[in-house]
Amino acid sequence: MEPYQLTLAEAARNIEAKELSPVELTASVLSRIDAVEDKITAFATVTAELAAKAAAAAESEIAAGGYRGPLHGIPVGIKDLYETAGVETTSSSKVRADHVPEQDSAVVEKLLAAGSVMVGKTHTHEFAYGAVTPTTRNPWDLDRMPGGSSGGSGAAVAAGECFVGMGSDTGGSIRIPASVCGTVGLKPTYGRVSRRGVASLSWSLDHVGPLTRTVADAALVMNAITGYDRSDPASVDVPVPDFTTGPEVDGLTIGVPANYYTERVDPEVAAAVSAAIAVLVERGMRVREVEIPLTPYILPTEWGIMLPEASAYHQKMLRDKADLYTDDVRLYLEVGEFVLATDYLKALRARTVLQQAWREMFVDIDVLIAPTLTTPALRVDDPSVTWPDGSTEAATDTYVRFSAPANVTGLPSLSVPCGFTGAGLPIGMQIMGKPFTEPVLLAVGQAYESATDWAKLAPLP
Amino acid sequence: MEPYQLTLAEAARNIEAKELSPVELTASVLSRIDAVEDKITAFATVTAELAAKAAAAAESEIAAGGYRGPLHGIPVGIKDLYETAGVETTSSSKVRADHVPEQDSAVVEKLLAAGSVMVGKTHTHEFAYGAVTPTTRNPWDLDRMPGGSSGGSGAAVAAGECFVGMGSDTGGSIRIPASVCGTVGLKPTYGRVSRRGVASLSWSLDHVGPLTRTVADAALVMNAITGYDRSDPASVDVPVPDFTTGPEVDGLTIGVPANYYTERVDPEVAAAVSAAIAVLVERGMRVREVEIPLTPYILPTEWGIMLPEASAYHQKMLRDKADLYTDDVRLYLEVGEFVLATDYLKALRARTVLQQAWREMFVDIDVLIAPTLTTPALRVDDPSVTWPDGSTEAATDTYVRFSAPANVTGLPSLSVPCGFTGAGLPIGMQIMGKPFTEPVLLAVGQAYESATDWAKLAPLP
Repeated sequence: MEPYQLTLAEAARNIEAKELSPVELTASVLSRIDAVEDKITAFATVTAELAAKAAAAAESEIAAGGYRGPLHGIPVGIKDLYETAGVETTSSSKVRADHVPEQDSAVVEKLLAAGSVMVGKTHTHEFAYGAVTPTTRNPWDLDRMPGGSSGGSGAAVAAGECFVGMGSDTGGSIRIPASVCGTVGLKPTYGRVSRRGVASLSWSLDHVGPLTRTVADAALVMNAITGYDRSDPASVDVPVPDFTTGPEVDGLTIGVPANYYTERVDPEVAAAVSAAIAVLVERGMRVREVEIPLTPYILPTEWGIMLPEASAYHQKMLRDKADLYTDDVRLYLEVGEFVLATDYLKALRARTVLQQAWREMFVDIDVLIAPTLTTPALRVDDPSVTWPDGSTEAATDTYVRFSAPANVTGLPSLSVPCGFTGAGLPIGMQIMGKPFTEPVLLAVGQAYESATDWAKLAPLP
Repeated sequence: MEPYQLTLAEAARNIEAKELSPVELTASVLSRIDAVEDKITAFATVTAELAAKAAAAAESEIAAGGYRGPLHGIPVGIKDLYETAGVETTSSSKVRADHVPEQDSAVVEKLLAAGSVMVGKTHTHEFAYGAVTPTTRNPWDLDRMPGGSSGGSGAAVAAGECFVGMGSDTGGSIRIPASVCGTVGLKPTYGRVSRRGVASLSWSLDHVGPLTRTVADAALVMNAITGYDRSDPASVDVPVPDFTTGPEVDGLTIGVPANYYTERVDPEVAAAVSAAIAVLVERGMRVREVEIPLTPYILPTEWGIMLPEASAYHQKMLRDKADLYTDDVRLYLEVGEFVLATDYLKALRARTVLQQAWREMFVDIDVLIAPTLTTPALRVDDPSVTWPDGSTEAATDTYVRFSAPANVTGLPSLSVPCGFTGAGLPIGMQIMGKPFTEPVLLAVGQAYESATDWAKLAPLP
């Protein structure tokens, strides 16, 4: 077994025990990148030299007794939306082709302080505005998309090109690639992790979080990146728990949706999630059927907020460099400029009503479990899905349908692999929870993960 | 001395000691209303019968040993923007001429639960959208405006027509009438007091709070009306202090603005506030000059938020009943419909930046003291002011200039009478503070009030 094939937790244990050197681990990851990157193109930039230096520094520091913790010496990939000091940060857009920040984003600062080794910047849908990542292929099937917008991070983690891929999630952009690439992805509660230095798509819906190979690995990353940051106006000053030690899951109640997540969903996906819930029931969890409230308002609220917020953020760049945007993103940004304040305000009010209704729904349950997505990875040459009723949905529309509720409500959602289709494509389920209960979601995810064996690297050709 | 001339605290002590009956007190207030209301028109509705019944009920309850606390048996006036079960709630608009709510607003519910006696609904600028109250006259000078939008409450409290006038404040509408009518007015921290059941002007700037004759009286009202309410999405779940027991003021630091509040301000107003600060320095408070940050953004932010939020709230009513609005309010509402979401979003972002800058400014001070308004009460026949530089400001513009910062920042602000002009018009100063430090503001206000003697009823002809 090559070092890149370990989980983060395994690699960390070996490093702490001085059985594995960060230099050796980073070299293994970099050579994996060399081997597969021409097929996948997960990275916008590979920072091999910087990574080698950081690994050497970690090695010396650990040798001198300065072990910093589980991320010390661990190779990570950072979505190209995150500012990285001295390293190009393009948001996968020509608009930012030459942008080299002077400062690290808050999360990168924390990851580096924890001793991790950045191996590169991962591709995104341009400025995170879409659920595909046109540059990048899905390691499970090179004819398919890795999802998006954090598709580079999803593909890189699934292909063994890094142990952590940082993502951002405005309508599902962490969970979508996690689900279709067969990785874990955590969108924390709104306000839990600082977004300072991450290009905004729609700031009242934006979240940052990790994609990893296992649930345990996600918990280790959360321990490193969480904490109040007054420079992010949305940051909430709540106590930071140890994300690796959640509650016992037996006795907790799973809410199982009777609607919304049951509509226009691939039967293989629905079956895998039902089977996963059965596994958790065997672990002592209870089940209660719940009605998802006010479902006709979910997507209009998501789009009614995202369109104008994105256009406000991009307004000056769009004036200066309209021709450098891709056609689809430019169109979204132009449409958003026509939205009236009164319509945006209606969306904000609808969000408040939705949040209250979801809070009511959660009174009698601990977590809500549903498919992360309506469908497994879509094809590169036709990123859309046609349903038995004859309706067709484009990738962004169909993916966002199940993932957006957690953005509109701000509730935490953890996507966990829960099986494969007959064709061998990964399926994900999402575990949603009450505000700031990530330790509960992670405990449920780990209870499931430990009873099954879905977490694995893509068997690349 | 007639019972209506007492302060709330004095009346409460007498009621508790059974030296004053709520029936007698209410009768005194109702006859005062009869005597002066034709000159002032503070009330949209006087609920004399209901009040007499409530007073009788309070009297029996107290006689039977059921004294509820300082508001038991105390006559109060409620701004007509507050829903009152079974009592017309018109927002001083023809649009709501026939509106009789089934439920009380949250604050009214609490005031009634505390045993207070509602004597009527006070006039507002139509739907609170302006800083005058065209229906109502200033008891200190009947040729002058009582300010607005809570002008009815200000005039009623100043004229002895009630002990408490509830107000609402989106750009200054509690503090403006308090200042020009010579009463105390408290705009609490955003999120401190529930707004459920109060017609919204601009919900992210709206606050509710009391106008009273003294600072001590305001503290007693705050004790009754404060508390988390999940039915107001802005309500913040923080501990409720005893507002009557603030800290000692000696050693606290007053921030004195070097700019903004010093520009285009009536010299008599500026002199009265400086003299008031000198009184507080004698009480052991320290002074530090501060620079008000980012002043060019304050008013555009206030208006950029208020215009579209008001239009969103009124949209359906404006479609159905445009002709029933007054011309000035209809114009505001129509203008607000043209605001683009991206412009509203710029105002929201500017607010966040302003809030951060004010937080920085408050690091080294405990309170900020400034004139509540640029000028004393304006004339009914010409509600505007002309400055020595030749510029002219309409009432709403000039009044909102000094009061809006506390709305944009959400910080608490207490307006306290601090003297009179040569012509005998009241002057107010505002004491602003950090979030949820109302007890500090009230302590400073009381320290000032106890050293001076400005709190008095208007000497009505």
